[in-house]
Amino acid sequence: MSTDKTNQSWGGRFSEPVDAFVARFTASVEFDKRLYRHDIMGSIAHAGMLAKVGVLSEAERDAITAGLQEIQKEIETGSFDWRVELEDVHMNIEARLTDRIGITGKKLHTGRSRNDQVATDIRLWLRDEIDTILGELTRLQQGLLGLAEAEADTIMPGFTHLQTAQPVTFGHHLLAWFEMLSRDYERLVDCRRRVNRMPLGSAALAGTTYPIDRSITCALLGFDAVSGNSLDGVSDRDFAIEFCAAASLAMMHLSRFSEELVLWTSAQFQFIELPDRFCTGSSIMPQKKNPDVPELVRGKSGRVFGALTGLLTLMKGQPLAYNKDNQEDKEPLFDAVDTLRDSLRAFADMAPAIKPRRDIMREAARRGFSTATDLADYLVRKGLPFRDCHEIVGHAVKYGVESGKDLAEMSLDELRRFSDQIGEDVFAVLTLEGSVNARDHIGGTAPSQVRAAVVRGRELLAGRQKNR
Amino acid sequence: MSTDKTNQSWGGRFSEPVDAFVARFTASVEFDKRLYRHDIMGSIAHAGMLAKVGVLSEAERDAITAGLQEIQKEIETGSFDWRVELEDVHMNIEARLTDRIGITGKKLHTGRSRNDQVATDIRLWLRDEIDTILGELTRLQQGLLGLAEAEADTIMPGFTHLQTAQPVTFGHHLLAWFEMLSRDYERLVDCRRRVNRMPLGSAALAGTTYPIDRSITCALLGFDAVSGNSLDGVSDRDFAIEFCAAASLAMMHLSRFSEELVLWTSAQFQFIELPDRFCTGSSIMPQKKNPDVPELVRGKSGRVFGALTGLLTLMKGQPLAYNKDNQEDKEPLFDAVDTLRDSLRAFADMAPAIKPRRDIMREAARRGFSTATDLADYLVRKGLPFRDCHEIVGHAVKYGVESGKDLAEMSLDELRRFSDQIGEDVFAVLTLEGSVNARDHIGGTAPSQVRAAVVRGRELLAGRQKNR
Amino acid sequence: MSTDKTNQSWGGRFSEPVDAFVARFTASVEFDKRLYRHDIMGSIAHAGMLAKVGVLSEAERDAITAGLQEIQKEIETGSFDWRVELEDVHMNIEARLTDRIGITGKKLHTGRSRNDQVATDIRLWLRDEIDTILGELTRLQQGLLGLAEAEADTIMPGFTHLQTAQPVTFGHHLLAWFEMLSRDYERLVDCRRRVNRMPLGSAALAGTTYPIDRSITCALLGFDAVSGNSLDGVSDRDFAIEFCAAASLAMMHLSRFSEELVLWTSAQFQFIELPDRFCTGSSIMPQKKNPDVPELVRGKSGRVFGALTGLLTLMKGQPLAYNKDNQEDKEPLFDAVDTLRDSLRAFADMAPAIKPRRDIMREAARRGFSTATDLADYLVRKGLPFRDCHEIVGHAVKYGVESGKDLAEMSLDELRRFSDQIGEDVFAVLTLEGSVNARDHIGGTAPSQVRAAVVRGRELLAGRQKNR
Amino acid sequence: MSTDKTNQSWGGRFSEPVDAFVARFTASVEFDKRLYRHDIMGSIAHAGMLAKVGVLSEAERDAITAGLQEIQKEIETGSFDWRVELEDVHMNIEARLTDRIGITGKKLHTGRSRNDQVATDIRLWLRDEIDTILGELTRLQQGLLGLAEAEADTIMPGFTHLQTAQPVTFGHHLLAWFEMLSRDYERLVDCRRRVNRMPLGSAALAGTTYPIDRSITCALLGFDAVSGNSLDGVSDRDFAIEFCAAASLAMMHLSRFSEELVLWTSAQFQFIELPDRFCTGSSIMPQKKNPDVPELVRGKSGRVFGALTGLLTLMKGQPLAYNKDNQEDKEPLFDAVDTLRDSLRAFADMAPAIKPRRDIMREAARRGFSTATDLADYLVRKGLPFRDCHEIVGHAVKYGVESGKDLAEMSLDELRRFSDQIGEDVFAVLTLEGSVNARDHIGGTAPSQVRAAVVRGRELLAGRQKNR
Repeated sequence: MSTDKTNQSWGGRFSEPVDAFVARFTASVEFDKRLYRHDIMGSIAHAGMLAKVGVLSEAERDAITAGLQEIQKEIETGSFDWRVELEDVHMNIEARLTDRIGITGKKLHTGRSRNDQVATDIRLWLRDEIDTILGELTRLQQGLLGLAEAEADTIMPGFTHLQTAQPVTFGHHLLAWFEMLSRDYERLVDCRRRVNRMPLGSAALAGTTYPIDRSITCALLGFDAVSGNSLDGVSDRDFAIEFCAAASLAMMHLSRFSEELVLWTSAQFQFIELPDRFCTGSSIMPQKKNPDVPELVRGKSGRVFGALTGLLTLMKGQPLAYNKDNQEDKEPLFDAVDTLRDSLRAFADMAPAIKPRRDIMREAARRGFSTATDLADYLVRKGLPFRDCHEIVGHAVKYGVESGKDLAEMSLDELRRFSDQIGEDVFAVLTLEGSVNARDHIGGTAPSQVRAAVVRGRELLAGRQKNR
Repeated sequence: MSTDKTNQSWGGRFSEPVDAFVARFTASVEFDKRLYRHDIMGSIAHAGMLAKVGVLSEAERDAITAGLQEIQKEIETGSFDWRVELEDVHMNIEARLTDRIGITGKKLHTGRSRNDQVATDIRLWLRDEIDTILGELTRLQQGLLGLAEAEADTIMPGFTHLQTAQPVTFGHHLLAWFEMLSRDYERLVDCRRRVNRMPLGSAALAGTTYPIDRSITCALLGFDAVSGNSLDGVSDRDFAIEFCAAASLAMMHLSRFSEELVLWTSAQFQFIELPDRFCTGSSIMPQKKNPDVPELVRGKSGRVFGALTGLLTLMKGQPLAYNKDNQEDKEPLFDAVDTLRDSLRAFADMAPAIKPRRDIMREAARRGFSTATDLADYLVRKGLPFRDCHEIVGHAVKYGVESGKDLAEMSLDELRRFSDQIGEDVFAVLTLEGSVNARDHIGGTAPSQVRAAVVRGRELLAGRQKNR
Repeated sequence: MSTDKTNQSWGGRFSEPVDAFVARFTASVEFDKRLYRHDIMGSIAHAGMLAKVGVLSEAERDAITAGLQEIQKEIETGSFDWRVELEDVHMNIEARLTDRIGITGKKLHTGRSRNDQVATDIRLWLRDEIDTILGELTRLQQGLLGLAEAEADTIMPGFTHLQTAQPVTFGHHLLAWFEMLSRDYERLVDCRRRVNRMPLGSAALAGTTYPIDRSITCALLGFDAVSGNSLDGVSDRDFAIEFCAAASLAMMHLSRFSEELVLWTSAQFQFIELPDRFCTGSSIMPQKKNPDVPELVRGKSGRVFGALTGLLTLMKGQPLAYNKDNQEDKEPLFDAVDTLRDSLRAFADMAPAIKPRRDIMREAARRGFSTATDLADYLVRKGLPFRDCHEIVGHAVKYGVESGKDLAEMSLDELRRFSDQIGEDVFAVLTLEGSVNARDHIGGTAPSQVRAAVVRGRELLAGRQKNR
Repeated sequence: MSTDKTNQSWGGRFSEPVDAFVARFTASVEFDKRLYRHDIMGSIAHAGMLAKVGVLSEAERDAITAGLQEIQKEIETGSFDWRVELEDVHMNIEARLTDRIGITGKKLHTGRSRNDQVATDIRLWLRDEIDTILGELTRLQQGLLGLAEAEADTIMPGFTHLQTAQPVTFGHHLLAWFEMLSRDYERLVDCRRRVNRMPLGSAALAGTTYPIDRSITCALLGFDAVSGNSLDGVSDRDFAIEFCAAASLAMMHLSRFSEELVLWTSAQFQFIELPDRFCTGSSIMPQKKNPDVPELVRGKSGRVFGALTGLLTLMKGQPLAYNKDNQEDKEPLFDAVDTLRDSLRAFADMAPAIKPRRDIMREAARRGFSTATDLADYLVRKGLPFRDCHEIVGHAVKYGVESGKDLAEMSLDELRRFSDQIGEDVFAVLTLEGSVNARDHIGGTAPSQVRAAVVRGRELLAGRQKNR
């Protein structure tokens, strides 16, 4: 690799060229070329502004704009020659522009610096990626609403401590995921507001002596506002870390979701089936059908947490303003974006295809004394304090464990051994339908509440469409 | 320690008492007793609601309320007897209530569970802590505005790569921190919205069979909304993780701030002095005056990042609904809250007392070719392309390094060796005041821009007052 | 709280006392008093050395030693008055020593600094804690060996992707945990070697002008070696981070172990029972018996990972030598030590009490086509390439899923539909015992291999006894 | 992309092909192809063993070996056609082998599984990478020893809290880094022992029914030992996490080293110069010469910490044995290896080229009351208790700050104002040479100690050569 210093944008004061290994070690073009489209978008807007304020002529602006558009085509058709010795995406594009349009190309860099250029590019890029991610989130949530509606009456065991706790409806369980994803959506929208502020105009660190008008570039690039301080504008990356935090939370939710899908497809649970197209097999065990997608998403949560940790570490000791450390912001961010987007896409495709095995779920709910709380509540209604009822039912359960009978399988006589307040009417309380229907308040598991929640969910998603 | 099972709220079905070490290992009262005030607040509201819907009589509600208020006094005067065998703050308070008011105390737990109780308590507590933190943030920002206004004209070197880059005003530098803290404030406000939703009514996991009215407790406790799904309500802790992420970002900013204070108080920089009351000395070196507060805050950033990592790890593999793992949410959250609040408090106290050494700052800016960019911009205005000007100035700097002269110290003849476009008017450009005044656009370092930014900052803080 | 500067060890050059909040914020005595025993041990050795080299008289040394021993008693009986204004454990003890023995007490600090004192204390303390942890690890491994031996013939399903894969023996499964813990043990032993090097003698940062002899203190304190560089000695904390990394790995293993225990106690698996004394119940659901210990340990892994993250962050930006940031090393380290030690203790108590339900395990292994690989291997032995056999068995399994028959339940005719190479001898291969016995090589699941591994394990543990 | 299921190794039981996006999402070949050389090495050894035990004929083994060698050439010349639908490096190579040598190629997979194959490949690969890293560590340490020897007498200020503390020699400071790197070396050697154990023979999870002899493959592949349990062998990744922890510590040390280099090249310190070939400039500020290499290395520490966090998260919830989550182990590990190796290489190249500016260092040491401790020690030798001497010198320093005089600049009369114990001999003590020479014990900063430490360091490095 050549490191001919005459190719470099800053060679004047240097006595020797950069060491070849150092040139490669410090170059970012291998990964930041991904920003090319937003780099060109930013440059066209910058040239447009420079022309408006008279720093460039209209002809110069047009030559720059046309040249950049041609370069974009070169990149997209694969004919662009990326050069490591030009360090990064910005210098590669600018050098090519000067090749194509001559001396005018050199004027594009007037009134800006790579420091504000990269900060602008990455925000433009991240804004677009967030929008894609929000779309996938909505698609996944739509799938969950459809499934929840269809399964509003399906009864399964609800677990705490992975022990059978109380019967719940499968639709209700699905809507728990819907709720988590709604908060993930909110967080990304909040994050997007802080991403969508424009550092361009900060120049290297202090602003520029050229008569720039930042409101023009702001409007051209669709930013919500200009950043208020140039030192801050070029140096902070909190917006990228905030994204990684929001992405980590979303991946945490997908990981929990995955954990359940993996459990539920096991031979021991068998609560659901996943279609073959979302599974893979084993090279050695012919009978295997593995829930690869949820396992992989569960595993991928780690890499997003790692990106978050890495970026916090990166920033925490840096004095103002820009330091080279910041070059390390991109790869973790890119990886977090790709991981979240693809994981959501896989889940949005897969979720509507989840097939519950209703009979097995119901049978599992029937066992495990899942209506013990209902019996305690029944006794409360007979006038006993809750804590005493709990004790009574505890003894009944102990008897059940020893005798192999669930509560609904005991005779009235057996039940009355534990409290003489128990009457014939107890058996209605001990059915699964009785149990779930009785939890009939907002947030409760009753089928009617599930249906109401689906309606609310649909309104929420509809509101998003309108806002975008 | 006794683990007499009759003290436990769930002993009915168990054949042997809990192992003594296990009892200690699994108990949370040592740390969750900190939630006592919010636990009592939640219980009083719950009792109020139960009375409204007819589950409790008014007399029962009054007895419970009075009993809880007495218990709060016991706790606050130190006469309350916390017992590990009662596991947690909830059971300790409830057991004491029954001691005091008899059987009615046992009715308080009707229609709720420890699962939704703890989720409610921690949200009430965190909401209050966020409000305190927002107050400290505002106080620190006020201090920065005052200092920035006083130092709007003070010139210092701006750095990139910790190399002298361009002159900036000290006021401008201070406002970079102001901007960071404003985003931290926004993030905490966004987080607070998601904290302030009420899980109470989720009961153990599925809702309750009692005719509760969640809108009543919601209003009594000042929540913005009730949570929409009981399984989600008792099990997710994303709000706590979101807080830790926002706190990590704020600590990252304080750590960067600290890094600069430590540099600036070094013998090599000497840009500022910190009053003795914020410093400590050495037990061995009598001359030392150490910037302990910023060093410690810089170090404390790590523990908040650690809390964030820990909580993400905690949640990522849990199936629904509540698992015992969740008990581990509290200590990291408590620690993150304490660390952020105290660090902000220390900085809010200290920031207005920062004493700049203006002469030293100015002298540092004068050296290091900090106006080289201004010379390049000057040449651009003479009609040369920016990239060529950069090269010309690079050569002048190289000459300056070798001859020991800064640009402003060279004669016109010397300067003209590098370009014949340079005229007598160049020296106005090479002054520090010329340099900073020329960066006169929003976000730029010019003193006039600093003053305008202080005005905007004051309006922002005033708006907060109104909204709270 | 008073911050009377005359109490402080460094007040000479200061004009005003430390701010009261700052004094509390920067003090460490609340947590570092835990080091008192090792602080006193280090001081007694230091005094002994000073006497040997003639800096102290023998009478002075004896007065110091006796005074420190008295102070240790005061601390252990609770009569010691810890004072925040004295900042840390070191100054508290030294001040008390001077109270007790007068001016001689002040001489103890000759030739050392708090910087090397704290680095020494924490290493002495950690060395002891590692030894305790190694003991608990061995105890847990002993329990696993006993259980593995008893269950060498017990057959259960082995899982990959949580899908039934192949039959394994329960003893074999238990020994997988044994192997993990053996590596954890090795790592802690390796870590201990680096912990057990003595920084004492580094003084504040550069060594001391007194004629100290570090080999004397090294021998008195049982260190393996003296550290080779004073700047490094007072400032690095890599040994503490290495411990947290080793502890994180051990907790990761315990978390995986826990995950399995939680699964296996679920109603869906029912592979094992845990005694009531390691479980807790629910305040609301009378039937619940929750595997709290494994859940909690699983949750606690996060806090140790967090400590590791926090400490790495803490150190990564610090220039030499000691900075106040380092004060933040203690709490995460203390917490990691406590968490690992207690988690191991709980598991060492619990593991031997795990009760397998052999019938349920066996039945689970019988289902799920767990001997499909054996059928493929059978066909390979008949001369077909493995990849083709895999395909054949895949079709047989598909037929089995559709017809509801496991492989061993199909008739010979049915099996021969998929390959005419299948003969009567296939049924021996399809039994569970046939499957596990056939994997009879080192590391394989055959009962004979389990027994051999138990023997090797016992030898390993016996070797540890000898080495300590 | 085609996902023709007939290309897949496990299609038999599946009814529909894998979804195209899922195929891409779950494939690993894009990154794991990097393991090709070690995959082929492992396969050749496996075939050799199978021939030794009679499962393969010698002719079959030779065909397999030759075929794999040809494939290696194809890969290395770029003519190999990597196919995503074949999922991973293993299936790509095996499929190509069957293309080339027919049915015999299918026999290679006898007695092994991708699960043990990937675990083996990654260990072989990591072992080689560790050896490369150890070489770079040694090279960097050699450079430090050379520089330390040359600068054994160079005096600079030693810092604590970044405040001038005591004079030290630059050679001594350099050797602090040497010590840190020695521990990093030790940790990697310890880690390598645990990496170099062979899982091959674990098969899918339970061992294999073929008469394999693991000692043969172990010897052929240069492993130190075979792993003792098949379930553990295929599923744990603790060795990779241990590597990332050791790498994180090494990067933490390089980050601290970098922090100092960045400080020292600043205009405020100017302690050293870095050659131009290790620096880069600014596209906007012609005078800039930025210490990019240390900045970037400082920044890169974050990504290794992130890899560590990610991998711990990945493993912590997985039940035995292999789960798809584990596929996510590779990219973080690869990235950590590359980052550490390249960072060390850059530092090993750069360190010997560090040019100290001795005059500036010395002048900095002369200021800042750096010999205050020496004055206190002097007074101790006159018979005063250390704590009182500290107080006396504190007052002298306060006077010095106010009068602008360093201690050595005060007259004897001035000094005697603070203690009448001070005599004419004090001035020898207050010189820089007097100060550093007086710290003449192992680990101290005296030039003689630096030279002794260099000798010890050279012996250490020489010992490494012998051992490898």
